[in-house]
Amino acid sequence: MNNNVYILGGFQTDFARNWAREKKHISAMMREAYEGSLITTGIKPADINAAFVGNFAAELYCMQGHLGAFFADLDPVFKGLPTCRYEAACASSGVAALSAVAHIQAGIYDCIAIVGVEQMKTVDAAKGGDFLGTAAWYERESAGVEFPFPKLFGKLGDEYDARFGLKAEHLARIAEINYANARRNPNAQTRDWYMSYDHACAGGQYNPAVVGRIKITDCSQITDGAAIVYMASEKFAADYAARCGISLDKLPRIQGWGHTTAPMEFAVKIHDSKDNPYVLPWTRKAITDAMKRANIDSCWQLSAIETHDCFTTSEYMAIDHFGLTEPGKSWQAIEQGIIEIGGKLPINPSGGLIGCGHPVGATGSRQLLDAYKQCTNTAGDYQVAGAKTVATLNIGGSATTNVVFIISV
Amino acid sequence: MNNNVYILGGFQTDFARNWAREKKHISAMMREAYEGSLITTGIKPADINAAFVGNFAAELYCMQGHLGAFFADLDPVFKGLPTCRYEAACASSGVAALSAVAHIQAGIYDCIAIVGVEQMKTVDAAKGGDFLGTAAWYERESAGVEFPFPKLFGKLGDEYDARFGLKAEHLARIAEINYANARRNPNAQTRDWYMSYDHACAGGQYNPAVVGRIKITDCSQITDGAAIVYMASEKFAADYAARCGISLDKLPRIQGWGHTTAPMEFAVKIHDSKDNPYVLPWTRKAITDAMKRANIDSCWQLSAIETHDCFTTSEYMAIDHFGLTEPGKSWQAIEQGIIEIGGKLPINPSGGLIGCGHPVGATGSRQLLDAYKQCTNTAGDYQVAGAKTVATLNIGGSATTNVVFIISV
Repeated sequence: MNNNVYILGGFQTDFARNWAREKKHISAMMREAYEGSLITTGIKPADINAAFVGNFAAELYCMQGHLGAFFADLDPVFKGLPTCRYEAACASSGVAALSAVAHIQAGIYDCIAIVGVEQMKTVDAAKGGDFLGTAAWYERESAGVEFPFPKLFGKLGDEYDARFGLKAEHLARIAEINYANARRNPNAQTRDWYMSYDHACAGGQYNPAVVGRIKITDCSQITDGAAIVYMASEKFAADYAARCGISLDKLPRIQGWGHTTAPMEFAVKIHDSKDNPYVLPWTRKAITDAMKRANIDSCWQLSAIETHDCFTTSEYMAIDHFGLTEPGKSWQAIEQGIIEIGGKLPINPSGGLIGCGHPVGATGSRQLLDAYKQCTNTAGDYQVAGAKTVATLNIGGSATTNVVFIISV
Repeated sequence: MNNNVYILGGFQTDFARNWAREKKHISAMMREAYEGSLITTGIKPADINAAFVGNFAAELYCMQGHLGAFFADLDPVFKGLPTCRYEAACASSGVAALSAVAHIQAGIYDCIAIVGVEQMKTVDAAKGGDFLGTAAWYERESAGVEFPFPKLFGKLGDEYDARFGLKAEHLARIAEINYANARRNPNAQTRDWYMSYDHACAGGQYNPAVVGRIKITDCSQITDGAAIVYMASEKFAADYAARCGISLDKLPRIQGWGHTTAPMEFAVKIHDSKDNPYVLPWTRKAITDAMKRANIDSCWQLSAIETHDCFTTSEYMAIDHFGLTEPGKSWQAIEQGIIEIGGKLPINPSGGLIGCGHPVGATGSRQLLDAYKQCTNTAGDYQVAGAKTVATLNIGGSATTNVVFIISV
């Protein structure tokens, strides 16, 4: 049996849209992503054997469950199609993609649609923040807390500060870079937003603190959006490549993956890691597991990383956890320009969650789609020149669920 | 590669309990199921490679998402364990089990815990009914409807009545049999409840109609509960059997499975099936797909069926869809005593959803656990004598997601 799993592309909705304002149901978002993907990929509906939907909390935001089944309503051909909804908070479509790899490697399906989808602009910020709190241990970490996740990822910054020192200017540079990259991405939520390093450094009325060290510009946005990618067996991918008139080795394949679950509560995570060189060792393990499976020794064999910058602190963590620097010295890679487009190892050329947007359940599949675009030289203005191997890191909760993929041509 | 997937047993919580009244968190329910399963199976925590949690809507009932990750908090050994939450409404742990089969067949994991869990007694009946409405297309089928699912499954009865004729006395017999079986099951929610055929036939103050033809006794209950089963590769199962001092062929294995998604809206399902001999052809297809994979020609090769009797009408549907009778003639199997314990093909010896209880996300794994018990002659007072091959049917929404397993020794 050949275990190669390929990515055939997909489609991302414009993350700047507000679907409640357009009076559109979450299933309409799924439909636009699906119909767009038929055009971008040339995949035929009858080719699709199953659909795995990643969604965090449509029950709360949209009073709708059973999201997997909505995919089967998108096309008359899909009547009977096996479907399922996957959830691991902000890593929901990451875990859906992991399962797609398993189903293809088991020989059960040849072509699976992975659809991340989230509609979040249905409620105000306070209610939305409360809903997001269910990604953490709600009773212990979120109940009665105005913005639980800014607080938790603020604490991640506090921990870096306590162990290694952390300067606000480095977090501000992360925000600046993501916003700058997003300006090159026609689907990015913030592509037309004003942002500068000085603005990110500023506090006060222009960039108020949400909680602790986390300012507005340190946060990813409340975003509506969907992203679909197709994964396929080698047999299907070979036929598909022939149909497209390209050679199979031009299609990115899953070279490695990692999947870990850390303790749910952030305080437990930090307590457990006190003697570990890494602040979040289970996130580190997902990365090193993926590298091992991919036969990669070093992050410098990567062309780019799409990482989970729900806050600037989580990208700061990703920099040393991927091995760009020694633990605690992420600031070096920032100062040296390594993570910018054109740098030695660009992070989030798409703009990431801070710039491109963070429709929670869609982020994992959006990252895979951007990795596909980089590896196929179709990322347009945010293309990393010559990209061959791209890693993604998708986390759920306060880095509780960790999903890493390495894809390459 | 050997593709056999085995079931090693598990544990079910007492479905009569009310965990909100006990002031216990949904994670405590998961913990009791897990700790119970260590005793019943002898599996060691370190043997478990991954945990797949089936849950419908803890976001709504318990204000808690990210349920997969809670499993990793149950034992210090589990730090880092890959986890995921699966959702397909009332078929949530059914789809989790399907994915476990794929991961084992792909050679990714050798032993996976499948944990269905639902806590529903946190809210009153009206609110709970509204929450359940998110398993259907909420805006179109549930919003403003007091009890959407009794209404939808009442319509299933209406459709049978229109096509073939349907007598209330046959639905009453289904209720009576499930309650009678539940009396033999020490974990059944209704094991001590009064029920009789006359009571099930009665309407009025003693057994009022919920909506249309659906009376109280036609409904499954609001239930709190969890059920865990372990699935394993042949390699792991062989070692486990040796450890237990039994031969591998005494352990049940997955002989076949089926998975389909019908159109979301019940009216569309019925419109589509108007020229089909079966009222719910996609449910029928999940059954016949499972039989094909299991190399079974006829339902009479089964020893028992655990089916999804969320209402008496859904069991009535299962009888002809499994092929016990010609389409529309389920009443014949009821009248002939075929579906009772001791009959030719007992249905729901456990009491099913009506008798045993229906903690939504836990029903699929509870069915698999009961199928395991039947095949290993450990079902106690509800044992079907000589059971070798048992089928399960787990449905989500108005038979939108359909998951069938056939397991055998």
